[in-house]
Amino acid sequence: MKIFVRGGYQTRFGELWSKSLADLLFEAVDGALENAGVSESAIEAVFLANKMGGLLTNQNHLGALVSEYFARPVPVVRVEAACASGGVAVAQACQGLRAGGYRTVLVVGAEKMTDGSVEGTSWGLMSAAGEDERAAGLSFVGLYALMAARYLAEYEGRAEDLALPAVKNHQHASLNEKAQFPFPVTAEKVLESGLVADPLRLLECSPITDGASAVVLSTRRGSGRAVEMAASVQTGTCLSLARRETLTSLPATVEASKVAYAEAGLGPSDLSFVEVHDCFTISELLAVEDLGLYPRGMAKVAMRNGEVRLGGIRPINPSGGLKACGHPVGATGVRQIVELYLQLAGQAGQRQVEAARVGLAHNVGGTGGTVVIHILKAGV
Amino acid sequence: MKIFVRGGYQTRFGELWSKSLADLLFEAVDGALENAGVSESAIEAVFLANKMGGLLTNQNHLGALVSEYFARPVPVVRVEAACASGGVAVAQACQGLRAGGYRTVLVVGAEKMTDGSVEGTSWGLMSAAGEDERAAGLSFVGLYALMAARYLAEYEGRAEDLALPAVKNHQHASLNEKAQFPFPVTAEKVLESGLVADPLRLLECSPITDGASAVVLSTRRGSGRAVEMAASVQTGTCLSLARRETLTSLPATVEASKVAYAEAGLGPSDLSFVEVHDCFTISELLAVEDLGLYPRGMAKVAMRNGEVRLGGIRPINPSGGLKACGHPVGATGVRQIVELYLQLAGQAGQRQVEAARVGLAHNVGGTGGTVVIHILKAGV
Repeated sequence: MKIFVRGGYQTRFGELWSKSLADLLFEAVDGALENAGVSESAIEAVFLANKMGGLLTNQNHLGALVSEYFARPVPVVRVEAACASGGVAVAQACQGLRAGGYRTVLVVGAEKMTDGSVEGTSWGLMSAAGEDERAAGLSFVGLYALMAARYLAEYEGRAEDLALPAVKNHQHASLNEKAQFPFPVTAEKVLESGLVADPLRLLECSPITDGASAVVLSTRRGSGRAVEMAASVQTGTCLSLARRETLTSLPATVEASKVAYAEAGLGPSDLSFVEVHDCFTISELLAVEDLGLYPRGMAKVAMRNGEVRLGGIRPINPSGGLKACGHPVGATGVRQIVELYLQLAGQAGQRQVEAARVGLAHNVGGTGGTVVIHILKAGV
Repeated sequence: MKIFVRGGYQTRFGELWSKSLADLLFEAVDGALENAGVSESAIEAVFLANKMGGLLTNQNHLGALVSEYFARPVPVVRVEAACASGGVAVAQACQGLRAGGYRTVLVVGAEKMTDGSVEGTSWGLMSAAGEDERAAGLSFVGLYALMAARYLAEYEGRAEDLALPAVKNHQHASLNEKAQFPFPVTAEKVLESGLVADPLRLLECSPITDGASAVVLSTRRGSGRAVEMAASVQTGTCLSLARRETLTSLPATVEASKVAYAEAGLGPSDLSFVEVHDCFTISELLAVEDLGLYPRGMAKVAMRNGEVRLGGIRPINPSGGLKACGHPVGATGVRQIVELYLQLAGQAGQRQVEAARVGLAHNVGGTGGTVVIHILKAGV
């Protein structure tokens, strides 16, 4: 059975003080239906991603809230897998379609993060990590800082290697009107920014963001340019970093990508561009190596030579990524699919990847306990 | 494609101070695999239900925690739909099997509710309701009290009608060694208990509970007595009570049951017994009327004449229900499927329903914004 992405939409990402979680959800649903040219009455089920509604605004049971959008009873399935919630929702939507009960479904992800206190939000983010890690006093950036320090030590990296993905992603975001930070930054600026958890600096971390995004998936092709779901794979390993054998790889990314390439019948060299989970700049370096795009320790070289920029051989994070487009947790994995759709449908405007044929989205929960990979390809 | 329930297990429900959320999850998984006679290596995916891990113990991303149970990468999908989380997880597991990617999956639900403060837990429970309802100062029991008052007024009920489901369910729980309250109570005792939200009294409310439960679902029959999934239906209407046209019915239950009966090819009269969502005694009265077991206003008559007791025409909540077996939110919907399995497989011991052939499980999120119905039947 073929599954098509029929359209997608993301709200502006940023500090959206005047919008509630419900406002963001409904704007994304409206936008995706309009972009897809699909009416509300065609949607048979909704898959919803949100991590912290309960924690930050005491609003769980968001599925029933989204049901109110429809003039008839509609099942809405809320999933949560930390920062991979969006990817899991897309994967569950694909399963729902493959199960044969639905022809057209909607996926929506949203997060409202800037209403809480900084302490509350930081504490909430650590709910993605293990109890032992919280007990050890680690922060979320602290966990990734351990990986970054190890990467630099193992592969003779230098401070600049952690800055370059941010420079690239800010450059891309400057072409994306929906981005939280639509402006470039220099490597000097990144390296001058405050140290958050050694060796990671402020401008090497993704921000706290409000936003939502939605896509329409269907077993029917529709009349627009067809964008096909070539692979949808979720896997999970373990919650705590301490249980892993390596700090310079997310084993779940390696595993999920193997399965996804097999499912799609293609390999890393077939990818026109990728959207990877750059919650920190180190995450982007690990991701592209785990996905088999570069040998171990070599992603930093690709960042230096610029082949991963828009206009280069294979752009990484043309949207600006989590770093510069923003990271409203539940929305991110869905936003990546929106970006893949826009690029493959030729609707990406100023940041259009030339001759985009195949795109991969890589969404990570926590420090890699959950990983979801989707591969989309432009129809023939 | 046929789906079989291969086995199930519930932990003791109650105030389990010495057990963590992880302890409960893993005990349930161990128990279900043992009861099903299925090895860990046969499980291809896990569907996990939890409502308040983030809120009460700051542990979200529970999927990755459950992945640690396995010696290999396994996808774990956590769903949340307030008190219907367990039912949604079972329904998603059925979709996963129908999608063709898996042959055998596990569903586990758990909640650790007694570690928080009473205020924190009460506040957390209201995360299942709407923002307008919280702003109005309503408590969760307050919402159901509105329904109870309306029911008594519309159908000329009396105080005793709200007590009798509790008396029956405590009687049933006295035969269930896993129940939180395994002892009978008299109607006098219930009617003497403190008023929580007029007209609902303390012994007419389900308790705050720790516990977990798990089931193994498979497209393969296995060697034991076959128990088949005849229908699996989720639907949703709206989060807030104020948006409904009636207070004496949950429209989502009516809708979901119509679809479920059609899917199973049977009707209310075919049911040997039911497990319904009695978060309050009024919920049980509304549920059995919404399910078409009794005409409007008549459930209270059935409670009086005793036909719904074990040994009666069609027992309701042979387990003791949420009221007396306990209500660890994420576990409840899965626990209902465990009960259906044990009854249909003839493993229910002292509380065995005679000649049990078909059972229905009814799981509600919030005040009915989400409803999930499963129908299981003993194999032929």
